[in-house]
Amino acid sequence: MVLDALVIALSSAFSSCYTGSLTLGVVGQEDLLRPLLEQRGIVDKVTIVPASEVIGMCDSPSQALRRKKDSSMHVGARMVRDGYWDAFVSAGNTGALMAVSRLVLKTLPGIDRPAIASMIPAVNGGRTLMLDAGANSECTSEHLVQFAVMGSCYMQAAEGIEAPRVGLLNIGSEEIKGTDVIKLTSARLAESGLNYIGNVEGTDLFGDDVDVVVCDGFVGNVALKTMEGTARFLAQAMRAELTSGVVAKAGALLASSALRRFKDRVNPGKYNGAPLLGLNGIVVKSHGGADAESFSSAIAVACREVSENLTDRITESVQELMEA
Amino acid sequence: MVLDALVIALSSAFSSCYTGSLTLGVVGQEDLLRPLLEQRGIVDKVTIVPASEVIGMCDSPSQALRRKKDSSMHVGARMVRDGYWDAFVSAGNTGALMAVSRLVLKTLPGIDRPAIASMIPAVNGGRTLMLDAGANSECTSEHLVQFAVMGSCYMQAAEGIEAPRVGLLNIGSEEIKGTDVIKLTSARLAESGLNYIGNVEGTDLFGDDVDVVVCDGFVGNVALKTMEGTARFLAQAMRAELTSGVVAKAGALLASSALRRFKDRVNPGKYNGAPLLGLNGIVVKSHGGADAESFSSAIAVACREVSENLTDRITESVQELMEA
Repeated sequence: MVLDALVIALSSAFSSCYTGSLTLGVVGQEDLLRPLLEQRGIVDKVTIVPASEVIGMCDSPSQALRRKKDSSMHVGARMVRDGYWDAFVSAGNTGALMAVSRLVLKTLPGIDRPAIASMIPAVNGGRTLMLDAGANSECTSEHLVQFAVMGSCYMQAAEGIEAPRVGLLNIGSEEIKGTDVIKLTSARLAESGLNYIGNVEGTDLFGDDVDVVVCDGFVGNVALKTMEGTARFLAQAMRAELTSGVVAKAGALLASSALRRFKDRVNPGKYNGAPLLGLNGIVVKSHGGADAESFSSAIAVACREVSENLTDRITESVQELMEA
Repeated sequence: MVLDALVIALSSAFSSCYTGSLTLGVVGQEDLLRPLLEQRGIVDKVTIVPASEVIGMCDSPSQALRRKKDSSMHVGARMVRDGYWDAFVSAGNTGALMAVSRLVLKTLPGIDRPAIASMIPAVNGGRTLMLDAGANSECTSEHLVQFAVMGSCYMQAAEGIEAPRVGLLNIGSEEIKGTDVIKLTSARLAESGLNYIGNVEGTDLFGDDVDVVVCDGFVGNVALKTMEGTARFLAQAMRAELTSGVVAKAGALLASSALRRFKDRVNPGKYNGAPLLGLNGIVVKSHGGADAESFSSAIAVACREVSENLTDRITESVQELMEA
């Protein structure tokens, strides 16, 4: 299923805005990949890079790291490290992807911990980037400030925002709120030269007052999964009511195209493609259950990072921060 | 506005199931309260306890604690402490309410930190209790285990669940996930004698697999506010689409009673009334913007805690835990 979706996304990438400059490769088990590429008529356009091992969703990152050195993740990351590819997109196990990428590509100078960033839809068609979304459960204020720099660079590059507004996820807008790490981070961000707007709360993630929301990976992951749970719960409750009687059903039918537009507007697939920031190379995590459209989004995220030289931008910004 | 809602809730409490055994009092500025009670014809049934000072939403807990000893919070908590009232419900500043309650009522034996618990609607009409919802930003594993005991007692008392399923909020279901505090807490919960089911995630908060979700107040508060933000964002997007054209509007009109039932089903006001657990007395926090119906919910939460002797139950359970 995932492979099918990937191959459709690859084939549609050739008809997208990236045509011309884009060359595509896939890494994995050739006997599985070749027939799918043939079926879509793109077997001559896409390089197949063989990888004999598979990292499962249940493998622990450390097992994956040490024992499966010919996995698609290892091989893909090496393709980036060795300059064959500009970027690598994977829908695999997040923890393993981060561990393997970190081992193979290393972190950028001045970055202690790479982070996973997640794009959240906001009102008025805006977007908010939240990081870390789950790579680092425990963070110091240095880590959080580095996340802020990386997120700010990303939003400049990906969304063209000149001075992205950076907020610190906290449990109140007042300065006295939060843990000691949060208070220290806030003081550091205020002096960082970033466009720091202070504390933000869970209710602000969908608003248009902030572009980059910084938090540790524990809090970020809980927030992301809570969003997912809330949306699923509300959708279930709504569906139950809209199918509860003839009149309701008729109304839902009449409003069906509006409901479809609503679904499309809040579709998380549109925001698929979570950049792993802080690595010496571009790696993007796709959702494991991605369909073709979502895969295309993740590929687009990677293309954007490449064309905007995100890695260099982060390196320069971190350098500036350290010199300041 | 809040006072109006409160007085309506008080007057409706007399016609509720609690009549007979229930005596009600209000604490605050008499010149404001008396006319409202007269208007509703309940001035003879409700005792007015005067309090000259007001703690504002912007007062810091420590200022409120020291400088406003004749605030409605101080007076209300003293009414409980001195045995005049069985419970105290407040819609005021949460941090101040916790600080004042803790100072006046003290914590129960064996409880280091009281927690705020929040009820979350779940699928199939169920409910999940999450604690701490924001009182304690930084928690040790001892605190988290105490929260688990208190939450379990609450769900036994309030929902009649014999052995509430307790989950630990984490960023993955595997045991290796999370911070050191979380891992230690998990090991302790497994030996606590509680019905501990292991790690749960943000997506599980609305499910029917867990009754009590334990987390520190930072994570809990972010999760709660993220729910609120997600629901608000989805409602806005839905409204925008359903009012975007004649056909959509007609459909929405036909489905309006279904949409109203949906709204009622997920209405947070129905779940209003967050118990402050671990105090030597019953205190319930109402949402600051509560309407009459929501206030009634909060009063009902307090009544339930009183009739089920929650304070004694917690004391006994903590005692058992410590002896085990």
